[in-house]
Amino acid sequence: MDSGQNREGQGDIVFRREKLDQASAIMNELDLDLWLTFVRESETTKDPSLDVLVGANVTWQSAFMVTRQGRRVAIVGSLDKTRIERSGTFPEVRGYVGGISSELLSMLGELDPARIALNYSLDTELADGLTHGMYLLLQNILKGTPYGERFVSSERLVAALRGRKTPSEVDRIRRACQATVAIFGELTERLKVGLTEKQVAAIITERMESRGLEPAWEAIQCPAVFTGPGSAGAHAGPTDTPIESGHIMNVDFGVKVDGYCSDLQRTWYFRRKGEDKAPKEVQRGFDTIRDAVHKAADALRPGKMGWEIDAIARSHIVEAGYEEYPHALGHQVGRVAHDGRALLCPHWERYGDRGDQPIEEGQVYTIEPRLTVPGFGIATIEEIVWVRSDGVEFLSDPQMELIEVG
Amino acid sequence: MDSGQNREGQGDIVFRREKLDQASAIMNELDLDLWLTFVRESETTKDPSLDVLVGANVTWQSAFMVTRQGRRVAIVGSLDKTRIERSGTFPEVRGYVGGISSELLSMLGELDPARIALNYSLDTELADGLTHGMYLLLQNILKGTPYGERFVSSERLVAALRGRKTPSEVDRIRRACQATVAIFGELTERLKVGLTEKQVAAIITERMESRGLEPAWEAIQCPAVFTGPGSAGAHAGPTDTPIESGHIMNVDFGVKVDGYCSDLQRTWYFRRKGEDKAPKEVQRGFDTIRDAVHKAADALRPGKMGWEIDAIARSHIVEAGYEEYPHALGHQVGRVAHDGRALLCPHWERYGDRGDQPIEEGQVYTIEPRLTVPGFGIATIEEIVWVRSDGVEFLSDPQMELIEVG
Repeated sequence: MDSGQNREGQGDIVFRREKLDQASAIMNELDLDLWLTFVRESETTKDPSLDVLVGANVTWQSAFMVTRQGRRVAIVGSLDKTRIERSGTFPEVRGYVGGISSELLSMLGELDPARIALNYSLDTELADGLTHGMYLLLQNILKGTPYGERFVSSERLVAALRGRKTPSEVDRIRRACQATVAIFGELTERLKVGLTEKQVAAIITERMESRGLEPAWEAIQCPAVFTGPGSAGAHAGPTDTPIESGHIMNVDFGVKVDGYCSDLQRTWYFRRKGEDKAPKEVQRGFDTIRDAVHKAADALRPGKMGWEIDAIARSHIVEAGYEEYPHALGHQVGRVAHDGRALLCPHWERYGDRGDQPIEEGQVYTIEPRLTVPGFGIATIEEIVWVRSDGVEFLSDPQMELIEVG
Repeated sequence: MDSGQNREGQGDIVFRREKLDQASAIMNELDLDLWLTFVRESETTKDPSLDVLVGANVTWQSAFMVTRQGRRVAIVGSLDKTRIERSGTFPEVRGYVGGISSELLSMLGELDPARIALNYSLDTELADGLTHGMYLLLQNILKGTPYGERFVSSERLVAALRGRKTPSEVDRIRRACQATVAIFGELTERLKVGLTEKQVAAIITERMESRGLEPAWEAIQCPAVFTGPGSAGAHAGPTDTPIESGHIMNVDFGVKVDGYCSDLQRTWYFRRKGEDKAPKEVQRGFDTIRDAVHKAADALRPGKMGWEIDAIARSHIVEAGYEEYPHALGHQVGRVAHDGRALLCPHWERYGDRGDQPIEEGQVYTIEPRLTVPGFGIATIEEIVWVRSDGVEFLSDPQMELIEVG
């Protein structure tokens, strides 16, 4: 019961209500009458919007309804009623025993919404929490009513709601970034040749836990640690591979502070005997990455498209003679490490329309190019920036110099 | 990095391969050619089948394909490739950079499956991990091919795979049950009037952590503790309400052992001054629940339907003059606390067809009726039984007597 990550205080209720008021305002902007989140057994299959709406799980089929006027009604199984009432964001909670359809139909009849936002999206997983089976079930329930034909994707609503951070959301992310940078500093003091990737990860985890923080994504690869030319490079857990002289090591790590994530990367170099600085090719790789980050950050502002920002960093790296990175330049960060809809990404099939969303004030992005320095390892930097009206602000001190050890 | 729940050992790989061999055997039985799990950003929206297939997350659109012949092919974003290879259950892992469609189409063309099981289900959340957006995306990719019309729900496959437990799965659940019962025993020794629900929960959590175990469901309501006539009764976290003399208290709690859950409930009574035993109405409430559990267990065997077993316990309680419980009698248990498809449930809308699935040998069920003793609290017992060819075996010692304190 003392697991901090699950404990929701009064502050979180106030905070969630603020976001739900923002949701209704966005619904007016987008001409949406009702936002319907239709879920069940959310511990097993979680609609990510549930965390924004109530921060609690449900067992049976449940409907969370938010109107453009700000009314909030939840229909849940009777044994879940107390829990949802206690979560404090839905003033009207209706419990049922046999089945949800009669309460749901009566509520829809009362509200008679013309445009209903439902959580499905081809390219945005955070607006795609409705399962296909639940979609079919909903259509079964609505047979004979006009509502089954009034659905639109909630992706624009979810994109705006998760993207436009309130000051208190930015404050939480900033604190998460600053804690992460401080932990990187403490790690540097303890780094030496011979430590394995797992040992490096253990140092970071210990420093995180000493602050009472939890990892921003699954612990098995948060931190992720990659040392040397043979490492996996990304998206894998640390191994027993030891750091050797002449290795580039990079770490990808983030923490959660009051439910909000950081996600940062740093690059270290381990000097070989007789070296008083990193070899030229290592330094050039690092400098290329650093400059790509800052060129992209300088261009990032409201109204630009994500693909334009990605192209700046990508072409900087390719023009310097390196292979292009096999992923997007950056993603949004928030309650989850990969948040929001707009991405700083190329026009690749796998990103759908996400690179063509105009960047908005209040969004928070990572910038994280990478390149391989053959024979040494992978140079990466990941920074987090907050989009202001006239440019961006880094939420923690960026890495300007290669960190050299030994 | 030392978070035990996320660490997968060599044993888990062997174990998962066993389950995937079982999946191919079931596919032959059900005349299915391909099981296709189509997912993305699985840390955000997780298809529960992913845990059975690989036990690792993916970032971009990914396809996990299992054939009836036992071939297993994964198509994942290039940066996820190492991680999925290391997970050890998919011998063929193909990475892509731009988009998944060309690899996916070429693989489907090569396999040319006539019947493709896809993870969507109206009534079974564990077979309903495909989001509606991903379903639409898949149909877009398959336009112009015959495959989009060859989909069937994977619910029968998932039901059999999760339901028919291997001996090592049952062993894990048994160990989880035994640890839970031992913790209940340790709790009893420390119970006294005046402790709050939260303090009771803290004792249980401490005892769990001292064994290096984690809760079977979200920590905020595992354990769930309910004392006295005014308690929420179910599905809510513990409060600051103190135990008083004359209270019935019940606890709902489970742990995970090697990835498998227990889920048990016990009932205590706190004697009032001068009482040398529980009042008659409390004893009668407890006895009614206990007898309902054992009548249901005696009837539970392969070939019966869940609704028949539910009806036995339900009518026993109603005939004794109590209100019927507002939920199913029992659910399956496995990698998640609410597992499988077949349920011991009445014919209520919210349970769909789940009470009409024949019970199979090898399944593991809870039996958990409840009733209210007015003025005292809620009496509940939850036991876990394993279905054998000729009846059931309790996986831990059942509660036969009311536990009296004071």
